[in-house]
Amino acid sequence: MVKMVIAIRRDIDMGKGKIAAQAAHAAVACTVLSMKKNKKIFNEWYSLGQKKVVVKVDNVEEIYKIKEECKDLGVISEIITDAGFTQIMPGTVTCIGIGPDKDDILDEITGKYKLL
Amino acid sequence: MVKMVIAIRRDIDMGKGKIAAQAAHAAVACTVLSMKKNKKIFNEWYSLGQKKVVVKVDNVEEIYKIKEECKDLGVISEIITDAGFTQIMPGTVTCIGIGPDKDDILDEITGKYKLL
Repeated sequence: MVKMVIAIRRDIDMGKGKIAAQAAHAAVACTVLSMKKNKKIFNEWYSLGQKKVVVKVDNVEEIYKIKEECKDLGVISEIITDAGFTQIMPGTVTCIGIGPDKDDILDEITGKYKLL
Repeated sequence: MVKMVIAIRRDIDMGKGKIAAQAAHAAVACTVLSMKKNKKIFNEWYSLGQKKVVVKVDNVEEIYKIKEECKDLGVISEIITDAGFTQIMPGTVTCIGIGPDKDDILDEITGKYKLL
């Protein structure tokens, strides 16, 4: 099975709608990237219900750590930075989208994080 | 300017992570559809920061009403139904993704709804 994981910072103050928009940014960015770079995995993921898991991380350092681990394992990822019109400072890193990719590879990277 | 709107039901009990995942489903579904059907608008939207607005609606009837209005105005939309593994019943309609399309057209459809 394949999935996408979205890891969201819990150390910045965002309302439900803001979090939803950031997760949507991450999902779209990873979708577009994976359609270009990993069409086979994308098609499998999309046709099987585009499974997504949303987890929380403590801070921006964890986002960068996930990014490095994704690079090492050849997994698509996209860090999302908010334009900051509302609620938070412009340029704030809010979340990272990871995959879609195989469950077991993503679990290596994000399996330790709790569901949001 | 162009944007995508995601309208989420507030009459069903979903946590932050669930809402984020549903919004991400809607955004990805509308992205894939608009890449196929409305590439010019998609490119404009994506290259200009893929603006998204998340609003709340009272019930599923409002979701269907939005869907009809989108059809009438030729706007892309995708209703999202949750697989229901957690929190809510399988097959529950959770939200609708609308666009991307021009601000003024989307405001006709969703301008009356409040931000989530």
